[in-house]
Amino acid sequence: MNRPTLIALDWGTSNLRASLLGADGRVLDTRSAAAGVMAVPERRFEHALQSLIGDWLTQHPGCTCIASGMIGSRQGWTEAPYLECPAGPQQAARQLTAVPFGAGHRLHIVPGLRCVGRDGQVDVMRGEETQLWGAGLEPDACCVLPGTHSKWAWLGPDDRVLRFQTWMTGELYALLTQHGILGRLMDFGGAFDAAAFDHGVQLGLRHPAELPHTLFAVRTAGLTGQRSAAALPDFLSGLLIGAEMAGAARDAGATRVTLLGDGALCDRYARALQAAGVAVQRAAAQATPRGQWRVAQAAGLVQG
Amino acid sequence: MNRPTLIALDWGTSNLRASLLGADGRVLDTRSAAAGVMAVPERRFEHALQSLIGDWLTQHPGCTCIASGMIGSRQGWTEAPYLECPAGPQQAARQLTAVPFGAGHRLHIVPGLRCVGRDGQVDVMRGEETQLWGAGLEPDACCVLPGTHSKWAWLGPDDRVLRFQTWMTGELYALLTQHGILGRLMDFGGAFDAAAFDHGVQLGLRHPAELPHTLFAVRTAGLTGQRSAAALPDFLSGLLIGAEMAGAARDAGATRVTLLGDGALCDRYARALQAAGVAVQRAAAQATPRGQWRVAQAAGLVQG
Repeated sequence: MNRPTLIALDWGTSNLRASLLGADGRVLDTRSAAAGVMAVPERRFEHALQSLIGDWLTQHPGCTCIASGMIGSRQGWTEAPYLECPAGPQQAARQLTAVPFGAGHRLHIVPGLRCVGRDGQVDVMRGEETQLWGAGLEPDACCVLPGTHSKWAWLGPDDRVLRFQTWMTGELYALLTQHGILGRLMDFGGAFDAAAFDHGVQLGLRHPAELPHTLFAVRTAGLTGQRSAAALPDFLSGLLIGAEMAGAARDAGATRVTLLGDGALCDRYARALQAAGVAVQRAAAQATPRGQWRVAQAAGLVQG
Repeated sequence: MNRPTLIALDWGTSNLRASLLGADGRVLDTRSAAAGVMAVPERRFEHALQSLIGDWLTQHPGCTCIASGMIGSRQGWTEAPYLECPAGPQQAARQLTAVPFGAGHRLHIVPGLRCVGRDGQVDVMRGEETQLWGAGLEPDACCVLPGTHSKWAWLGPDDRVLRFQTWMTGELYALLTQHGILGRLMDFGGAFDAAAFDHGVQLGLRHPAELPHTLFAVRTAGLTGQRSAAALPDFLSGLLIGAEMAGAARDAGATRVTLLGDGALCDRYARALQAAGVAVQRAAAQATPRGQWRVAQAAGLVQG
């Protein structure tokens, strides 16, 4: 008797992931498609949505639809204004952007977050805030969400995100390996080289303020034969992640960090955090639909 | 009666620049071609050389040929082993690599330099050492040679290079603008935006250890309209160069720096150094053929 109640969409740049949640907030079914914001031609977002979950909408006409992620960006379906930090699910629930579609349906888009750091530097996120709200975090957690642009977030009472930082570590790795001179000496696709990665982490941790110089060590390690071509990608990865640990953890003063996400990249972050002397814990999976459920509850869209 | 005496080749990755020097070391003539090491098909270096200066070789049969730069790398004509720092023109003169070519000619290739920095990090240069030796530097100078990979070099007595650092600042700028997400918001080709550049320099100077995070400010400055699309390239350029100043100058403890090179990039470095509180002076032009002359003299290839 767990009646389908909420259709929760994790709609990012590359992918659209849909979850069907029951009246108790549990996930009943999931589906996904390579129908992210940058992958849908001519902004035909309604078509992409109907293609993936049109049958859910027909079979469960009472369901509410909620979405978070890049679908609320300027390139998305409708721009959902950013919410200023500090902000939690209660604040987000008061600023949903409703988009009518199909036969009387409405898609409620969760706002992204915006914060102003040192020197007036603005930072933004879309989607990660909802993941944070669904992760079941301890109060005052410092969280890291690895990715192409990793996010460090500091939380306060009621899961409010106090502030956060974006680190372009993953993009730098992709650019340097795919288009830069460092990639020319590399062999890709081998097994993870823990020694090369750990050495990179140590260099990055020790010299974060000289990263554009230390990067050149990846080239000379290849030129001089200090490291094999197969070891260089992991050496570079360690160097970049180590520099992120030093820079962000110093700012954090964090001795304990919660990692959100899974897969090989998260394992690398865990390894580098431990090397930096930071205790690591992992957050539970399926954080995004749980965060969406919390926002929908707070907005009165579903009963709690 | 300034008899042509030395043919000096500045042979880099992209270009081959030839100078004809008289018996007093002065430049009599210059030529160049887009015949750098990576631009010559099938390593036909002798053909490229004869095409550019075959007539000099015929008309001035007594001339000696000397070359510096990437022509001595593994991808070049012949690999000229690196010389360990500290090293000056006297040391280089004792380690020239002679390559026979044509009708009894020999090309003397100047060795590159190698130094070992903190944590055993190896650094290398090819070509810049010769430029340094020809720049007429004061004793104990700290020098910066801007470029795709800029070099910071610290000199001791007799123009010996004590140690140096490579900074990949220029390559990072190229990668981020040409292949990264930051470039997507940018308009290129406008006039230099001094205010955007200076703001970037200040951010880079203040937060060198958070560069992969601060880079994201270029994106948010565009997203939020803080900076126009035309101002973003100079903002990014300032940020990267500012971070280099903070990282390298801290290591240098330098209060006075000599800039080698010319053009717009050098002007940017001068501006950023001044913002960092470092006094700047410019070295004389035509440093490379003068450095080659000094090495040739020390080797006894020309009379001094």
